Amino acid sequence: MARLSVEQVHGLVVETLVRCKTLPANAESVAAALVGAELTGQAGHGLRRVPSYAAQAMSGKVDGHAVATAEQRAAATLAVDAAHGFAYPAIDLAVDALPQMAKACGIALCGVTRSHHCGVAGLTVERFAAEGLVAMMFANTPAAMAPWGGSTAVFGTNPIAFAAPTVGGEAAVVIDVSLSKVARGKIMAARQRGEAIPEGWALDAEGAATTDPAAALSGTMVPMGDAKGTALALMVELLAASLTGANTAAEASSFFDAEGPAPGVGQTLIVIDPACIGGDAAVARIGALLATIDGQDGARIPGARRKALREEYRRDGVDVDDGLLKEIDQVGR
Amino acid sequence: MARLSVEQVHGLVVETLVRCKTLPANAESVAAALVGAELTGQAGHGLRRVPSYAAQAMSGKVDGHAVATAEQRAAATLAVDAAHGFAYPAIDLAVDALPQMAKACGIALCGVTRSHHCGVAGLTVERFAAEGLVAMMFANTPAAMAPWGGSTAVFGTNPIAFAAPTVGGEAAVVIDVSLSKVARGKIMAARQRGEAIPEGWALDAEGAATTDPAAALSGTMVPMGDAKGTALALMVELLAASLTGANTAAEASSFFDAEGPAPGVGQTLIVIDPACIGGDAAVARIGALLATIDGQDGARIPGARRKALREEYRRDGVDVDDGLLKEIDQVGR
Repeated sequence: MARLSVEQVHGLVVETLVRCKTLPANAESVAAALVGAELTGQAGHGLRRVPSYAAQAMSGKVDGHAVATAEQRAAATLAVDAAHGFAYPAIDLAVDALPQMAKACGIALCGVTRSHHCGVAGLTVERFAAEGLVAMMFANTPAAMAPWGGSTAVFGTNPIAFAAPTVGGEAAVVIDVSLSKVARGKIMAARQRGEAIPEGWALDAEGAATTDPAAALSGTMVPMGDAKGTALALMVELLAASLTGANTAAEASSFFDAEGPAPGVGQTLIVIDPACIGGDAAVARIGALLATIDGQDGARIPGARRKALREEYRRDGVDVDDGLLKEIDQVGR
Repeated sequence: MARLSVEQVHGLVVETLVRCKTLPANAESVAAALVGAELTGQAGHGLRRVPSYAAQAMSGKVDGHAVATAEQRAAATLAVDAAHGFAYPAIDLAVDALPQMAKACGIALCGVTRSHHCGVAGLTVERFAAEGLVAMMFANTPAAMAPWGGSTAVFGTNPIAFAAPTVGGEAAVVIDVSLSKVARGKIMAARQRGEAIPEGWALDAEGAATTDPAAALSGTMVPMGDAKGTALALMVELLAASLTGANTAAEASSFFDAEGPAPGVGQTLIVIDPACIGGDAAVARIGALLATIDGQDGARIPGARRKALREEYRRDGVDVDDGLLKEIDQVGR
């Protein structure tokens, strides 16, 4: 295990991607997002993605030279084309443009198409909260869940993220919920260890409950909240794909391997200026509600640990697996 | 059991509420919503609410003479004050004003404050879908669920509703998900029958799992999807109450009894014009995604049965319990 500073992690991502057919500006955007994931303790969306991202840039599945573009379609809607590049430069365009639109109209929407893995959705909505705005994000991902009662995956694990600001202008709360009961990574880990998985996590290819991780991986994930979670996954799919023109979960290729066409998934962002609906007191009310949660034994506000975690990682650096560093060092050489 | 035509149900609601200190225009709005619930097979939000609504109008907990008002706060935001009257006339104002705002800006938001029980949230979003729009609704309700790890209820069962249109201009899909694992009514029914409830439905007042319906009713409901569901309930609370200035779930009085101050809850509606983000093809893509679900054995599209149910009830009428009819006949005399 090696200990890397935040600057070292950032530099390593940029250097590796630039070596692997990626524009420096795009590599910088990816690096900022992956460092953000590491600082939030979400290593699965951090440096660990670099070998896969780099391989996809090398094969052309991700176009590292893509230049994302934004087009305002109405006073409060923005269409962003990620152009089959990384998602992060496209999301940066939304983060640049939406606050002004939301402040002018009260609410604004951005649809991102021809996009890729959006990483930690909570980090994106948090960027709007840092500007005093309420934000929601809906992202579709490659097919993993069947409609309730069916057996063929047509929905991704489709995260819903939400953030709201404090009076001081930072995120008071960050919600980030993927709609499968457990992350697919937990099933992959069980298979590696040769262990059974608990019933209720996944279904086999025929739609029957299974405790066999291999059967689960060739089947579908159980949604959180069963039928209700499937309904929400459909809502996310309709918002992130049907509305924007992105590929549906069933059409999207894997975010991991370097084979086949680009995933082409979508993300939809909705940003609200609290002052334009609830007046000057709206943000103070957010804090008051959160205080009633924070005051309860055992309860916590989603996203509340982020600040302390970040300070800790910025000060002490992050631990990175030696095998991963070796893999990153070799990719594209 | 009596069989009433849809017109008879409507007339009965209007007549009863007008007798119980409610303006005819408000009574008409309530009647339309309750008939809508009956036609969707959601009798719990239908005629069965009349004795409680009427008693609240008599006691002044609901102001039957309230005149809801709407104020446009920005190009795409509307603040509606239900003025502690019924929710439905306030929601009608949103249904009148939001489509034009959404078509002008691409997206529009309405926050309803000083509101009451909003009935079947799916029926409201469906009204926007019937105008070719995508709609979401978030409503907070009196406290029923604790934050994850806590034991004091600070969230309602807080429904999320969503609808999207067909090319022909009707609702292609209607999603309506309340965020508790099961409806509170199921626990009340178990107590009446003297039966235990399954573990996982509710917690007692100390936050421990319980199978005793009485302990459950003085405790809290388990959210659907456990911690993830609680996070979504917090999101709804922030959107419907903190953002708008409505009472939080913990501040809101019961929707059922006639005691105490008005509930004063909130509803937030977000309406999107698909053409302003996904162009002319957006609505066709919605239909294409839904067809992949409809084609799967055992799977169904949420809300798909509505049309047939409505035709059946409009033709045959709805069955109403004699005891309920007697109760309605006596209220306010």
